[in-house]
Amino acid sequence: MSFAPVYLDWNATTPLAPEVRDAMLPWLGAAQPARFGNASSRHEYGRQARAAIDEARARVAAAVGAHATEVVFTSGGSEANNLFLKGAAACLKPGTLAISAIEHPCVREPARQLRRAGWALHEIAVDADGRIDVADWQRVLEARPTLVSVMLANNETGVLQDVATLAREARKAGAWLHTDAVQALGKIEVDFRALGVQAMTLSAHKLGGPLGAGALVLDKRVELSPLIAGGGQERGLRSGTENVAAIVGFGLACQRAVAHRAAEASRLSVMRDGIEAALSALGAVVFSRAAIRLPNTVFFAFDAIDGETLVGKLDRAGFACASGSACSSAQPEPSHTLLAMGVDPTVARGAVRVSLGRDTTAEEVERFVATLSHVVRDLRNLASVAL
Amino acid sequence: MSFAPVYLDWNATTPLAPEVRDAMLPWLGAAQPARFGNASSRHEYGRQARAAIDEARARVAAAVGAHATEVVFTSGGSEANNLFLKGAAACLKPGTLAISAIEHPCVREPARQLRRAGWALHEIAVDADGRIDVADWQRVLEARPTLVSVMLANNETGVLQDVATLAREARKAGAWLHTDAVQALGKIEVDFRALGVQAMTLSAHKLGGPLGAGALVLDKRVELSPLIAGGGQERGLRSGTENVAAIVGFGLACQRAVAHRAAEASRLSVMRDGIEAALSALGAVVFSRAAIRLPNTVFFAFDAIDGETLVGKLDRAGFACASGSACSSAQPEPSHTLLAMGVDPTVARGAVRVSLGRDTTAEEVERFVATLSHVVRDLRNLASVAL
Repeated sequence: MSFAPVYLDWNATTPLAPEVRDAMLPWLGAAQPARFGNASSRHEYGRQARAAIDEARARVAAAVGAHATEVVFTSGGSEANNLFLKGAAACLKPGTLAISAIEHPCVREPARQLRRAGWALHEIAVDADGRIDVADWQRVLEARPTLVSVMLANNETGVLQDVATLAREARKAGAWLHTDAVQALGKIEVDFRALGVQAMTLSAHKLGGPLGAGALVLDKRVELSPLIAGGGQERGLRSGTENVAAIVGFGLACQRAVAHRAAEASRLSVMRDGIEAALSALGAVVFSRAAIRLPNTVFFAFDAIDGETLVGKLDRAGFACASGSACSSAQPEPSHTLLAMGVDPTVARGAVRVSLGRDTTAEEVERFVATLSHVVRDLRNLASVAL
Repeated sequence: MSFAPVYLDWNATTPLAPEVRDAMLPWLGAAQPARFGNASSRHEYGRQARAAIDEARARVAAAVGAHATEVVFTSGGSEANNLFLKGAAACLKPGTLAISAIEHPCVREPARQLRRAGWALHEIAVDADGRIDVADWQRVLEARPTLVSVMLANNETGVLQDVATLAREARKAGAWLHTDAVQALGKIEVDFRALGVQAMTLSAHKLGGPLGAGALVLDKRVELSPLIAGGGQERGLRSGTENVAAIVGFGLACQRAVAHRAAEASRLSVMRDGIEAALSALGAVVFSRAAIRLPNTVFFAFDAIDGETLVGKLDRAGFACASGSACSSAQPEPSHTLLAMGVDPTVARGAVRVSLGRDTTAEEVERFVATLSHVVRDLRNLASVAL
């Protein structure tokens, strides 16, 4: 391509932060001092790899107020979510598992696998704004679930859940609560102790870190059977030669995301508010606008304009956005998050997500809003001609 | 450190090949044209990521004579081994599983998890040289296993198994055969069709590719339940945002490893033979010397010299070798491979592995042999003084 489109899809993945890249390059032999090694090896190369992993583990732990020994590195968020759900279930008799109705597929699908293995599965309803429905939550607690998983921030709407309260109530009811914090970390404050959860999933590539690294932060009282068994790495909970470069990048990405979080949140929310004002003026519906949300995410739809079509037009006009969540966008069904919120499927099919990040500038947002206005006007003219 | 030790532990992990690194750097934003993206995204960034993954998949497939649609990318070899064993078992009624007694822990441990889940587990015996014992293999077939896993090349001894014959006989007996080809690829010819196996595990970081990428090559007639379920990537068999940089590196590493394989094999085997001649002269036992082996691996022991001690001395003298396999070297038990071969535990505790690779030079090997002679003499003098 002759020019780089403006990237407005930071919830799907992020480019590496330059400092993160610089920290990784020695481990790829692309900067001095060149490093490599299997962290299980007993020689100098192995010891250096082990030391780098230890340092990264401390950084990840510090970013979320956990202890380094509570961090289990995985290949990413999907693996960490699967590890918690299936790993904990494997150590228990089949019981009741509850997840919110708006979880990412990498929570929903392992939950469904557990249902096929004999677990009762409750999907906790959400209200019209995408928040856990209080009445349904109480009903779920009465069913005495063993395991509960509720995401901290939704990848599509950006809606935050009051996980601290849910965790406290779940604990009282005898359940362990896991939270998928993949979209939250770096955007809002995330504190493992303050949330009071027993397990939490993190991912590096959503916060300026590399693909290939994530973590399950785990209360040591929770017994897990490993998903990937073998050499015994990660306290026996996740075997496989550690991806040192990715783990090093993950550690630094956590550190810098937390350091810049407050300033970035206010900078991005101003731009987000500008986009939402423009969307309202153009007649769009902004989903979950009444809820407390991530500062960087706008999820919206225009009446009678298909989301895929709008994303395609914006792409050709030089702006990269998402329709629904990236992971499920291979399927043409409307967003399950919106359907769970009671949004009409016709409206849901119009959904487009804009998510801002580190490199997003006010000038880009201004150009985006102008382009969006043109594109929407053109699509509406086309529609009226077709009528 | 002031100088880089000579790396003689290529079976544990390998430094990135320079061409592989160059192909990866754009995906880390460290070379032009800078690239990044979630391959599930529908915009320009996502399409470029998808195209890069498709190209890498074709390269991996070509390197092993498979079809691109048979390649399922994973985070590495441990995950691929676990995916096959647990994923296939999850689609079957518990039956009989057979693995060789010398499999890597990432085959042995999931096999033991399956045993706890109701599967009968047979460990196929090996002879004194580390080859599958023919009589025991016949006994195992009579037990009508559903799943069999036998590695193509052992990570410690380098011994090759006649997997093509085993696969043919297993198929006749109604079993699917999986082979862990992690140590074989790039060192000997590996052909999925010629081997006639139903599944095969590969890993990038053993052949000049990056950590964080591996594959399960899978006959499409084999049904698998995903270990990591979610967004539906990799034909639903392995969810999670694809690690584009690592996959791109894996593809190129496969291509170049196959291109250089024959020349490298003869270059390395000459050096390997030199080391073995020197070892014999020094009075060492070289394990599996009578078996057909990888061209780069020497596994040996000196009478009354502890392997850990020898590796430590060599490390301080500037040579990085392994005692036992890297993955299990956190545990001080002697190599399970040697014990399965009937080697006395006292002898097995002396085991040291030297594995050569792309950057190994004849001059390094010469210096290694000289240093080894000194170190062994010193340790023997020490022992005789102690007496």
